Amino acid sequence: MQWYFVAALLTILTSSQGILTKLSQNKDSTYDYDTATVPFLGEIFKLLVSCFFLWREKLASPTPLKITKEWRSMQLFLVPSVIYLFHNNITFLTLKYLSPSTYQIMGNLKIITTGILFRIFLKRKLTKLQWIAILLLTIGTTTSQVKGCGDSMCESLLSGNITGYILAIVSAFLSAFGGVYTEYLLKKNNDSLYWQNIQLYTCGVFINMGWLIVGDFQSGFEKGFWWQRLFHGYTLTAWLVVANLASSGLLVSWLMKYADNIVKVYATSMAMLLTAVLSQFLFDVKATIQLLLGIIICMISLHLYFTPVHMLVDLPEIETPVRREEDP
Amino acid sequence: MQWYFVAALLTILTSSQGILTKLSQNKDSTYDYDTATVPFLGEIFKLLVSCFFLWREKLASPTPLKITKEWRSMQLFLVPSVIYLFHNNITFLTLKYLSPSTYQIMGNLKIITTGILFRIFLKRKLTKLQWIAILLLTIGTTTSQVKGCGDSMCESLLSGNITGYILAIVSAFLSAFGGVYTEYLLKKNNDSLYWQNIQLYTCGVFINMGWLIVGDFQSGFEKGFWWQRLFHGYTLTAWLVVANLASSGLLVSWLMKYADNIVKVYATSMAMLLTAVLSQFLFDVKATIQLLLGIIICMISLHLYFTPVHMLVDLPEIETPVRREEDP
Repeated sequence: MQWYFVAALLTILTSSQGILTKLSQNKDSTYDYDTATVPFLGEIFKLLVSCFFLWREKLASPTPLKITKEWRSMQLFLVPSVIYLFHNNITFLTLKYLSPSTYQIMGNLKIITTGILFRIFLKRKLTKLQWIAILLLTIGTTTSQVKGCGDSMCESLLSGNITGYILAIVSAFLSAFGGVYTEYLLKKNNDSLYWQNIQLYTCGVFINMGWLIVGDFQSGFEKGFWWQRLFHGYTLTAWLVVANLASSGLLVSWLMKYADNIVKVYATSMAMLLTAVLSQFLFDVKATIQLLLGIIICMISLHLYFTPVHMLVDLPEIETPVRREEDP
Repeated sequence: MQWYFVAALLTILTSSQGILTKLSQNKDSTYDYDTATVPFLGEIFKLLVSCFFLWREKLASPTPLKITKEWRSMQLFLVPSVIYLFHNNITFLTLKYLSPSTYQIMGNLKIITTGILFRIFLKRKLTKLQWIAILLLTIGTTTSQVKGCGDSMCESLLSGNITGYILAIVSAFLSAFGGVYTEYLLKKNNDSLYWQNIQLYTCGVFINMGWLIVGDFQSGFEKGFWWQRLFHGYTLTAWLVVANLASSGLLVSWLMKYADNIVKVYATSMAMLLTAVLSQFLFDVKATIQLLLGIIICMISLHLYFTPVHMLVDLPEIETPVRREEDP
């Protein structure tokens, strides 16, 4: 499978996620099912799929699969789940200080922090042009989200609490670190991806379960035990939300192993734009010129990042290009 | 003189133009002087300055200056003035169909049309990266001008008359053609720039005079003859407006001869952003996140256009770069 095919599929699935979630709502924007149980069910789904694929791989493979079972290696798979837990909590905290729209705008910082941690921890060198492309992607997604200053948006964006901004930056670093760490983990050895997934998602199942239990305690068991709400009120669309979330997760994991974090960031950023475009056809959302500008900027960024440099500038094939480019 | 020094100076002067004009207003946004006379006085100013410099150049030069005095060559200098006349009229016409803010947004097309005519008429090749930079500059200036959809702006931008959009595109092409033609004219031979300027501005003086006379007839000589209003109500700030307009014109002419249209487009685009930033300090204008995003986009564009390619990507000095870049 080519990575760009997987990335395109991830874009479509990620962009469907918001739309499916919206379609699973009642008319008064409430949910019949408990949305807090969606990530848990998603982890179960991914775990089952990974088990199935590992079993199939085992049957098909003439030699025994490479599977590292040392505890020292296995415990590392807990880290992404713990980061995810921290990130979730910081998001809740940040939203006490910043408006949701400001938080959304600040969330674009994740693109830059991913680039930075990608460079530092994975020691991957990017060209200056690629750094520019990453900056442009951040600017592009931000542009598409800006609502303008006609209403109160403008002030609210700049009048947030400084603690909120710091938390949003920490959140962007945590989110990027989660991605970069997962890439490190999956590429560390050439274990079967499905075996690595199983370890990853087993941790995920337990962390999400813990999260649901804590929620139960916090609400004073008002809504009963979490497992009582697990399948309650799940319509077909709600199940599609779970299946879609799980499938995107599996694609992300594949990209982390066989491509990298930057590819994943591009796929999810493009998904955000695709959602915005689709929303205009599906829901009563008005087209903005900002969205159009944002899309063009992100397309340019994509082009700058992935196009081989000799297709961007006319490099001589035999001469040393450095001398040629210096005299304008 | 280095071209980037002249370009920076042009940026400062162009950006001062809007601010000086605003400062020359009365408190109720009216003018004591006739603003229609400003371009005419500007042409006179440029003509006088050019005569002075030509005279100085003649004194300093040991050999006779290169001065082409054939009528066939001289009549070509009428063309930019005629284009300017057409462009002015089309602007008036366009504003009947489009709102001023939509016209302003559409005006950014001039950047792209300049690139296109620069390629076609001056046969100058741009790399793909430079085309991307030009597109980004257009996007950046547009982004900085978008007011957002909170107010009525959003609809008005998309609900203009189709005739208006076509006229705006024609206007963008005319404006670009004026620039490209002037560059062709000034580079055509190695005549003294001051002599070329004198021909250019003599035509300019007459065309502007014609424009004032037509205005007199249209208003039925309500305000008397144009020459009676020439110096009437001119304060020091108003004279600064004239001097500033004339000086920017002289710098543009220098850039056309010794640099090119693209450099000029960058200088005036940056000036637009600089004006927006300065307006926030000088006048009661609120900072928008769009302006910040627009500035970053234009800076990236500037960087992509003018930075030598070997500073953007790590090109191998000896190997052929094509092969090296193809395997990611």
